[in-house]
Amino acid sequence: MTIIASSIIAGEHRTGTAGQVQGINPVTGKALEPVFTFVDKDTVDQAAEAAWSAFDVYRATTPEVRAVFLETIARNLELDGERIVDRAVQESGLPLGRLTGELGRTASQLRLFAGELRIGAHQEVRINSAQPDRAPAPAPDLRQRQIPLGPVVVFGASNFPLAFSTAGGDTASALAAGCPVVVKAHNAHPGTAALVGQAVNAAVKEAGLPAGVFSQIFGAGSAVGQQLVSHPRIKAVGFTGSQGGGLALMRTAASRPEPIPVYAEMSSINPVVIFPSSLNGKAKDLASAFVGSLTMGSGQFCTNPGMIFVPADDQGFAAAAGEALRELSGQTMLTSGICDSYREGVSRLANIEGVSAVSQGQEVSGQNAPAPVLFQTNSEILRNTPELQEEIFGSAALLVRYKDESDLVSTLESLHGQLTATVHATDADSESVKKVLPVLERKVGRILFNGWPTGVEVNDSMVHGGPFPATSDSRTTSVGSLAIYRFQRPVSYQNIPSNLLPEALQDENPWSLPRRIDGVLNS
Amino acid sequence: MTIIASSIIAGEHRTGTAGQVQGINPVTGKALEPVFTFVDKDTVDQAAEAAWSAFDVYRATTPEVRAVFLETIARNLELDGERIVDRAVQESGLPLGRLTGELGRTASQLRLFAGELRIGAHQEVRINSAQPDRAPAPAPDLRQRQIPLGPVVVFGASNFPLAFSTAGGDTASALAAGCPVVVKAHNAHPGTAALVGQAVNAAVKEAGLPAGVFSQIFGAGSAVGQQLVSHPRIKAVGFTGSQGGGLALMRTAASRPEPIPVYAEMSSINPVVIFPSSLNGKAKDLASAFVGSLTMGSGQFCTNPGMIFVPADDQGFAAAAGEALRELSGQTMLTSGICDSYREGVSRLANIEGVSAVSQGQEVSGQNAPAPVLFQTNSEILRNTPELQEEIFGSAALLVRYKDESDLVSTLESLHGQLTATVHATDADSESVKKVLPVLERKVGRILFNGWPTGVEVNDSMVHGGPFPATSDSRTTSVGSLAIYRFQRPVSYQNIPSNLLPEALQDENPWSLPRRIDGVLNS
Repeated sequence: MTIIASSIIAGEHRTGTAGQVQGINPVTGKALEPVFTFVDKDTVDQAAEAAWSAFDVYRATTPEVRAVFLETIARNLELDGERIVDRAVQESGLPLGRLTGELGRTASQLRLFAGELRIGAHQEVRINSAQPDRAPAPAPDLRQRQIPLGPVVVFGASNFPLAFSTAGGDTASALAAGCPVVVKAHNAHPGTAALVGQAVNAAVKEAGLPAGVFSQIFGAGSAVGQQLVSHPRIKAVGFTGSQGGGLALMRTAASRPEPIPVYAEMSSINPVVIFPSSLNGKAKDLASAFVGSLTMGSGQFCTNPGMIFVPADDQGFAAAAGEALRELSGQTMLTSGICDSYREGVSRLANIEGVSAVSQGQEVSGQNAPAPVLFQTNSEILRNTPELQEEIFGSAALLVRYKDESDLVSTLESLHGQLTATVHATDADSESVKKVLPVLERKVGRILFNGWPTGVEVNDSMVHGGPFPATSDSRTTSVGSLAIYRFQRPVSYQNIPSNLLPEALQDENPWSLPRRIDGVLNS
Repeated sequence: MTIIASSIIAGEHRTGTAGQVQGINPVTGKALEPVFTFVDKDTVDQAAEAAWSAFDVYRATTPEVRAVFLETIARNLELDGERIVDRAVQESGLPLGRLTGELGRTASQLRLFAGELRIGAHQEVRINSAQPDRAPAPAPDLRQRQIPLGPVVVFGASNFPLAFSTAGGDTASALAAGCPVVVKAHNAHPGTAALVGQAVNAAVKEAGLPAGVFSQIFGAGSAVGQQLVSHPRIKAVGFTGSQGGGLALMRTAASRPEPIPVYAEMSSINPVVIFPSSLNGKAKDLASAFVGSLTMGSGQFCTNPGMIFVPADDQGFAAAAGEALRELSGQTMLTSGICDSYREGVSRLANIEGVSAVSQGQEVSGQNAPAPVLFQTNSEILRNTPELQEEIFGSAALLVRYKDESDLVSTLESLHGQLTATVHATDADSESVKKVLPVLERKVGRILFNGWPTGVEVNDSMVHGGPFPATSDSRTTSVGSLAIYRFQRPVSYQNIPSNLLPEALQDENPWSLPRRIDGVLNS
């Protein structure tokens, strides 16, 4: 396909007069063709209304129809993969290999949800049989399943133009749940969004679904977003981005006449704890791996390790990390705005009392490629300086020296909610680790051992989530098959005649769903 | 046990100087001994801090320990059952038989969660095995389970002094999930709350759990509630009560530095749809059953049928319902305040244009026992008059005449979110019912056929919940085993050494939990 420079409103390509945007190559600063126009308010409303109109038909489809639909999106993305990846490279400055991998990940994410639909555990089918002879009153036949919430607005993220954008995890899980999706396209990669949107739209047609199942809107950032989140036809929100943006959406959603859930993945500094035993003879290797994780993709990962705890008397690790970093050149960031924010964050951190620089790399001038940087402080200063917990999006980290186990525990207790925490230790530190783990469990969605948080598997066991302010809702994940649970709610059916029962609840179990019948699980 | 007139703060009986309250017998208007004092702010803080201190120890207990703990509470309630029920009768004006049944239900609800703990499906264990040879990168060992959110505040409800109060469904499900509980005792039944609190407290001691696992506070309604919901140690809220109260808690929880989930079950008018076929020769029986459900317990049920749709040309049902109602005397309501609100609601409804009275029963003077009442209007007026959807807590209902299937569907579309909807029909109306069911699914948490919504089973399949404003969060239920999901969140563990893995995730599966391993469910 070639790029069609327009919003897609329920299958129709639409342009508007509310402004315009072009992709910009952050390496060269040059604008990319074509120009995308912003649609006006009425057109945005039409997308929400079309999603609502499509809802009852779409949610009545079988799991197999929805699974094939998701697989068709995946196939369409792969068929047009070369063009999509090429465009994403130009718009994001991310390397070809990374984006090729991300396309594969996006497709396999869609297929994971297709598989989830065929397993069907998320439908949570429960049946309690009637007991006509129960005393003092007969028990009714009661059956429960999950139904989708309704149309979902998805905000694409800049840092994953494929896996967390138009056809990313939020869209895949909402569509799997049976919710129509209205995407607010990210203006940092409009061409990529358009190509992916066309692939989704083609799959809607091929599956014979109502066109309102998918729309994608180009518009000025916050105004269109607020309009969509306020719209009475919208019933949930998926968002990955800044804390400011996420908090604004949370406020809007909570103050609607009918409040709706917001799943915002916002910010995290992803603490890494280095125990003494892991440094024995390996300080240099560990430091090198840390710097690799910190600077990969210019540090533009939600799970970037932005804070690393080392024993107070460490010399080897900090020195080796500083040395490794000094040799590195900056990599182009996604946009000049993100690059500016990074510089501001670094300069703010550098000016906080008690913080000193360990080392920094080389800036590449004129390419939005700022120097990666490592600062240091100690645990007491961290505990007393909440600003040190503000995420700097990019390759900046703060090394924190801790005195002993008790100092470490109380410092970890002072951290805000995070997506991940990582422990580096050997058996020699097991007793200390046992004291740290319960604290980390309360703080994060994922705990890693002797690794680095920047790889996020897409499978049944992943939690990409965590306590506020990492996300708006710790009870969920935005990556992995559990994400489908965000977009559904339970309904129970009491004494419904068998010819009127939804397929999911019929005795014959036509969809072969796992069920809990009279307290007994079968699968 | 005898009533100890005090708050329980982490096992200690405490009185205060912030005010006082006594139970009042609504039949006689007489105050009941003893006097309960309100504790001051510091004492409230102590309860939250004690809950927090107990959290890590409590959540580390095995499912069996928590199951036995819940069973011990149930047993303690039954051992002191006669005294508890007797006191509840005096404080609520509800009949002995009803409260005896409610005590049994409260105990069996605790045992349901004990059973849920032993099944363990709510722990959602998922394991994805490491794939060291996967290309392009090895896959880690990743394991997921659910952990409890933290201390929970529970607000007891006036209309179920046992099943939705101190040791009711919110408390049972939060304790089952591993969350310490701080109960704000309901001031309409302080003696009942005290006796039940003593039973819970004794179980905490017997189980050898940290005392902070349970506290119960007597205090002035909204101030103490707001203090608790604002407290940084509190991580979730369970509430059953008025819409005003629920909305206030939602606002407070959303505006905290760290927002927390609120599960508020607030208001519902529980529409009942009578299809023509169900009236054939049975109008009188149906009307009599309707009036029975409407007036049972003076109509003080969340699921009371407050709106009933009948064909426009119906004469038999309305006449028979009117006649049945006319013969009934009012029953004492829970408090004089609730009785006053009922009268105000009835008078407001009577003055709305297009609404007329069908019939009313007899008031019993001096006993807070107002007349049950039935009004009528038509579908068009209902669609254009949102005030008609305001719940009147008590035995008042609005009969709505609809023209035809299409008029019925568009009128049901105009309804707000509800706990339940009920359909009365025979096979002859199946085609119409098929058009109504998808609308009802979007509006409610439970759909019933040819029955009445006022019985709420406590089992795996019950959903006592529904879209806003019936509840604050449609994704959950406050009755039944699924309620445990409200108080937990997922955490995943990546490459954690086996000696440090939580029991729930160990290969050996010491708790015999159902698991999903590499995409395959076993149970």
